[in-house]
Amino acid sequence: MAVLKANIREIVAEHGFAAPVHVTRPTMPPLADYFDLLAEVWPTGSISNGGALHQRLEERLGEYLGAGHVSLFGNGTSALIAALQSLDVAGGEVITTPFTFAATAHAIHFSGATPVFADVGVDSVNVDPDRIEACIGPKTKAILPVHLYGMPCDTGGIQAVADRHGLPVVYDAAHAFGVRVGGRSILLEGDLSVISFHATKPFSTVEGGAVVSRTSAAHDVMESLKNFGLSDGGEIVAPGVNGKMNELEAAFGLLQLDSIDEEIDLRRSLAMMYRSELEDVPGIACLPEPSGVDWNGAYFPVFVDADRFGMTRDELQGILERCNVFARSYFYPTCNRFPCYAQEPSANPGGLVNAERWSARVLCLPMYGMLEYGAVSAIAGIIRWLQTNG
Amino acid sequence: MAVLKANIREIVAEHGFAAPVHVTRPTMPPLADYFDLLAEVWPTGSISNGGALHQRLEERLGEYLGAGHVSLFGNGTSALIAALQSLDVAGGEVITTPFTFAATAHAIHFSGATPVFADVGVDSVNVDPDRIEACIGPKTKAILPVHLYGMPCDTGGIQAVADRHGLPVVYDAAHAFGVRVGGRSILLEGDLSVISFHATKPFSTVEGGAVVSRTSAAHDVMESLKNFGLSDGGEIVAPGVNGKMNELEAAFGLLQLDSIDEEIDLRRSLAMMYRSELEDVPGIACLPEPSGVDWNGAYFPVFVDADRFGMTRDELQGILERCNVFARSYFYPTCNRFPCYAQEPSANPGGLVNAERWSARVLCLPMYGMLEYGAVSAIAGIIRWLQTNG
Repeated sequence: MAVLKANIREIVAEHGFAAPVHVTRPTMPPLADYFDLLAEVWPTGSISNGGALHQRLEERLGEYLGAGHVSLFGNGTSALIAALQSLDVAGGEVITTPFTFAATAHAIHFSGATPVFADVGVDSVNVDPDRIEACIGPKTKAILPVHLYGMPCDTGGIQAVADRHGLPVVYDAAHAFGVRVGGRSILLEGDLSVISFHATKPFSTVEGGAVVSRTSAAHDVMESLKNFGLSDGGEIVAPGVNGKMNELEAAFGLLQLDSIDEEIDLRRSLAMMYRSELEDVPGIACLPEPSGVDWNGAYFPVFVDADRFGMTRDELQGILERCNVFARSYFYPTCNRFPCYAQEPSANPGGLVNAERWSARVLCLPMYGMLEYGAVSAIAGIIRWLQTNG
Repeated sequence: MAVLKANIREIVAEHGFAAPVHVTRPTMPPLADYFDLLAEVWPTGSISNGGALHQRLEERLGEYLGAGHVSLFGNGTSALIAALQSLDVAGGEVITTPFTFAATAHAIHFSGATPVFADVGVDSVNVDPDRIEACIGPKTKAILPVHLYGMPCDTGGIQAVADRHGLPVVYDAAHAFGVRVGGRSILLEGDLSVISFHATKPFSTVEGGAVVSRTSAAHDVMESLKNFGLSDGGEIVAPGVNGKMNELEAAFGLLQLDSIDEEIDLRRSLAMMYRSELEDVPGIACLPEPSGVDWNGAYFPVFVDADRFGMTRDELQGILERCNVFARSYFYPTCNRFPCYAQEPSANPGGLVNAERWSARVLCLPMYGMLEYGAVSAIAGIIRWLQTNG
């Protein structure tokens, strides 16, 4: 590392934050409003299994997202498991990206299938359609791309591959709440899309998620699979998880939905500021705001080229941490490196060089609606200072 | 059916309830107290992933249950999946009872193993140790008995079988919150116990559950498996679900814990009343209060002998429903009847005659702390009337 210990003490003393700045934090709805919503359900005692607020949230989300049939879940992972289950992937293979959160690969595991990793692009953090096609074999049951950081996949290219091979596509849209391409919800791509409403996401139900289906028949299957495989007729028709969202979470979501546009606007402004403050820093690359896309500011990753920046991603992360800034290497390592998947033929890092390179360099900087512009400026300032004085 | 339509109209008119009486309902904590607890966490923004209330609930439950290390989960099913996963059951067989809720068998499925069904007793709703032993084969990885309705299994008999064959035992203690045998928590039996905190249970976090481990090492494995398999060191060491309980749920649980002893006392009193009002009704059998056991009144099942009672369980359930009493056939059908398990050799109903008989007869009557004595008396009155006038 080029930065001397004395310099680090200097930067920490001069630019360190008094209070921790986390990589993200939820915008909390007014507690009094939350109380008012709960006062509606408290006397009924109906606090899970599709209560009144749950139904209201499902309807309002359907309208807001403009994207078909919404099935709420207790978290994005159980939603992803159910989505894959509905496509009968058990015993087969599902092609996905290695550059994603662990839940993507784990959902394939829990649906009884094997993950097959296809590399992402040189210029895109998302899985490459040609690499998907190269992975297709007789056991392939489905394709599971991820709109990483809310950045849209090449959905046209992916659909063309899927159509050529008659394969269904489930989008892991955990990061893609509210993203529109040419004014059209990205959740309308593929056969199913799965969103996450975890507390770290722009829209949150604390823990939660949803499957967005194209048809009411597919929606009915989701309703069953999130409730132990229980059919409308009261019979167990398949193994199903407990994927139910409760009223405490639905109430939180209803209030978050009231301010979601403002939250996303704030995030995009902060992202613009990061980009403008960091664009001329050698060795630091930001992802451009995708054109024609209503992006949601889900994350703000930068990619550290150690040779040009003068220190590695881990070194930068460590110094930021000493300054009380808790940036995170989302997502490192790539899923093909996990011991549970590393023995798969497709997990060989030699075939996943783009994903490995993005992942080795990534650092997600703090990003949330309540983050102050001054904080963004100060964080960018630390990074600039390190490059100049490193 | 022996009861004429005219009689049914009479009983409905005379004994029907004005408002629906559900099989169970949660005792809601005072909303103002709930608000006060949330006011502690709201400003912090730490609302999932092991927040302050989550930690407090985990500690208080450990003390209350007197049963080792408690790992909170988002629901009992994900807790059960993680418990089984920790025993490396994938690819093998897990012996369980067919007379249980679907989640028991499904958890085996999602842990990558195959359920093997062993019959329950003639005089016990729980799995029979001898029948477990007869099911043990080279692929057996674990035993998963259920303390159905909070009624203790023959834990001594089961442990003897487990010890003879060197097999671990996970108790599905979904119904057994707070149950003690000879003053000792039943959650101390076997290697792991899994509790449910669903809204239908005596103690609830709306949705929730826990794994109770014997050792801190086993507890650490649970903490990892409920968080995507992430280790303390920040590495993914195994496939793991999202099994996290959030602060909204933990706050609910903390308040429920304040009144749990009262809730259980009320339930046991209601059960005594049901038993006393129904003991002389031909064709209606109740489970006796188990001796030497601090039972928790989780459910109040009765078993209908159609020949002696004069109508079937389903007919009785239908008439009660017309009286606005929503009794439930927990658990019918038995899990071996589900299409997803029916092809297993052990699923043959011919080998599970006791489970099939209990299940065909069972009807769980309304049971919850706030249920009025008068309602119990009236429900029992309808059942007595039907037997007499049927």
